[in-house]
Amino acid sequence: MDARLMIMGGAAGPELLVRFVQLAGGAAARIVVIATASETPEAAGAWYVDRFTALGAGTACALPLATRALAAAPSAETVLRSATGVFFTGGDQERITTVLGGTATDTLLQELVASGALVLAGTSAGAAMMSATMIVGGDGPGVTADAVRTGPGLEFLPGVLIDQHFAERGRLNRLLSAVARYPHELGLGIDEDTAILTDGDRFEVVGSGAVTVVDAGTAAEIRVPATGPITLTGACVHVLPAGCTFHLTGRRPVAGVPAAERERAA
Amino acid sequence: MDARLMIMGGAAGPELLVRFVQLAGGAAARIVVIATASETPEAAGAWYVDRFTALGAGTACALPLATRALAAAPSAETVLRSATGVFFTGGDQERITTVLGGTATDTLLQELVASGALVLAGTSAGAAMMSATMIVGGDGPGVTADAVRTGPGLEFLPGVLIDQHFAERGRLNRLLSAVARYPHELGLGIDEDTAILTDGDRFEVVGSGAVTVVDAGTAAEIRVPATGPITLTGACVHVLPAGCTFHLTGRRPVAGVPAAERERAA
Repeated sequence: MDARLMIMGGAAGPELLVRFVQLAGGAAARIVVIATASETPEAAGAWYVDRFTALGAGTACALPLATRALAAAPSAETVLRSATGVFFTGGDQERITTVLGGTATDTLLQELVASGALVLAGTSAGAAMMSATMIVGGDGPGVTADAVRTGPGLEFLPGVLIDQHFAERGRLNRLLSAVARYPHELGLGIDEDTAILTDGDRFEVVGSGAVTVVDAGTAAEIRVPATGPITLTGACVHVLPAGCTFHLTGRRPVAGVPAAERERAA
Repeated sequence: MDARLMIMGGAAGPELLVRFVQLAGGAAARIVVIATASETPEAAGAWYVDRFTALGAGTACALPLATRALAAAPSAETVLRSATGVFFTGGDQERITTVLGGTATDTLLQELVASGALVLAGTSAGAAMMSATMIVGGDGPGVTADAVRTGPGLEFLPGVLIDQHFAERGRLNRLLSAVARYPHELGLGIDEDTAILTDGDRFEVVGSGAVTVVDAGTAAEIRVPATGPITLTGACVHVLPAGCTFHLTGRRPVAGVPAAERERAA
């Protein structure tokens, strides 16, 4: 699998972090950690640098991008052009989009991901910002227009809307609310210690939990009043644990033997 | 609507309780409260008797059924044969099924509901026990075989599996887990202060929240390992607020203008 993106639902365990190190080149990996989302970016950056080094990365360093000026500076470009893997920590996804959005760093990362020069990974807030439409907040119960707030993400993975800590925080209602409003976007709910690895317009699930895909494209009826409950009939749900593969543009799981079993059999 | 069952997701407000009183005959209603599920059945019974009286019921009384002997006694039959509405309180649904299951009270209630002699209502545990397959417990995150424990309910509404406090407790994962194991059963997740009113094999949604129907009958692939995440692809979800009608044997929402709007227009 030629993964370009590794999108983690938070609380990633060693299995997922090692997988990222390997995708970035293992002993030859040059990993850059961007902790802009974190309230304590220095500590968060240092923590992941230590982890990736301990897990066998060739080199790992933190790239402090606390301001738009830093994200526009040539020094950031130098660091990123030498990277084989870039990792976005958790925190507040709006900090990532407001600090990085539209800067030279944003543009460069899009280019480097598209060309296959590096693997881009993110966890929690670092996962949310990968979406075309990003869930910003909202944890109210029920499926209602005000149960979820959204905004534009950095669009590394177009056509999706990502939610994280998914099973752990019982967020299916807010994902249903979001896709009812924006049925073009596929809703991806990623559990903790779980990730998707993208390869073109497919993704494979890895980790200990599952990815829940909510597709309101099949819905027969959608009504979203300004207040009060949403009506949504005929939406489609897929619960996909590790090894399952999903075709994003086809909006369907890839049938047959999971990739993990194919690999074991090969 | 000729309602036989009124199944409430817990925390029922005055609108729902009045609706039950009206369905049972309003000023002519003779309501019997069964608080077997409650840890404090005397207090729970008295509380609902007061509420139903205050909301205009002709008469309301509690029927104490703490033991199987009481549920088999002729005195219970006398009380129930004179009722126009029976209400089961919340608490522990397994107390209802172990104390009432198979007793003369159980049999009599089935007959009285089937003949239309009374309206049977229940909230929370009193809703869960209406199912063919009843969710007994389990609140773990994720969609896994052990995320949910089930057992037989009293089958007032066959072919369904009911979960309650649905949005408030983020229970879609456990309902998905249950229907993945038992795809014959339609999963009904009822929010607080929300109910379904059944009429034959249809139900209408009433109250302030929504009913989420999860149908694994459409699933293309279901794998339920003994431990670890379930795979479930192609399940169908409907989120139905007040006024929506659902056809149970057809496993589909009834399209068109919601019943509440029809009633207002008429």
